[in-house]
Amino acid sequence: MRLSGGVETALHCCVVLTAAAEPVPAARLAELHGVSATYLAKQLQALSRARLVQSVQGKAGGYVLTRPPEEIKVLDVVEAVDGAAPTFVCTEIRQRGPLAAPPEACAAPCAIKRTMIAADQAWRAVLREVSVADLARMVGQGYDTDVMGSVGAWLAAGA
Amino acid sequence: MRLSGGVETALHCCVVLTAAAEPVPAARLAELHGVSATYLAKQLQALSRARLVQSVQGKAGGYVLTRPPEEIKVLDVVEAVDGAAPTFVCTEIRQRGPLAAPPEACAAPCAIKRTMIAADQAWRAVLREVSVADLARMVGQGYDTDVMGSVGAWLAAGA
Ligand code: FES
Ligand code: FES
Repeated sequence: MRLSGGVETALHCCVVLTAAAEPVPAARLAELHGVSATYLAKQLQALSRARLVQSVQGKAGGYVLTRPPEEIKVLDVVEAVDGAAPTFVCTEIRQRGPLAAPPEACAAPCAIKRTMIAADQAWRAVLREVSVADLARMVGQGYDTDVMGSVGAWLAAGA
Repeated sequence: MRLSGGVETALHCCVVLTAAAEPVPAARLAELHGVSATYLAKQLQALSRARLVQSVQGKAGGYVLTRPPEEIKVLDVVEAVDGAAPTFVCTEIRQRGPLAAPPEACAAPCAIKRTMIAADQAWRAVLREVSVADLARMVGQGYDTDVMGSVGAWLAAGA
């Protein structure tokens, strides 16, 4: 079970957007991350569809976060890029075969499904606890240099 | 991000094997679950490779669990069927582009990777807390009828 590769790029983009004073063109985001414009466009599209970023038209156009980074959870970004479907799909295998459980006995999920759902929820809970603002703060503390400041300056220089 | 469909079948098989007094032929397990022999063989192979089940040869041959069901965790079965690779893969995107972090600054994972790893670990922790014996007990309590007893009787009748 593996998340789509776009999750890493999308999360890094959201963190970068917190450092921008002005809308950031998609081409600048692609350049900054050393990925192709096409690849980046795909992730921005997913983020736009989920209304986490929006594109601002005009001469100084580009992408901005649609709300304060405190209000964008890591889970929002993960689900925007990778989908929000549950990680475990139960096909009600207990209702098949010679000892099939009758449908009326299957109102509640079976113990196996319950366990798998609990694990899925634990995973989502961690991702819901951390916001893009938290990530930006942690990234800012993780290096000797002022990374977020450098990113902001680089973005401003290109504007 | 979705687990392979075989996880449901494999977990149900392990629970069923706790009810068996004798080794259970693969064909009986397929019949009980209403799935094709080929599909079931694939899951049993994965469980065998992970040494969770083994096939006993001979006239009364078939599959048995290799250890007490208390000692087989749901996570063991999930990883046997779906693989044990991490759900999030970091490509060190921070080391690309014009502001690339120098490798020597990247000994520790970035804040984004740390968050994704924490979520992965929370998911695995839930699956490690529940054993196949727990599942069998919970399945036994989930229905009005004695499901595990019926399974045991059905398996014995076919032996
Ligand atoms: S019937 Fe689907 S997990 Fe048990
Ligand atoms: S560099 Fe890979 S998640 Fe940040």
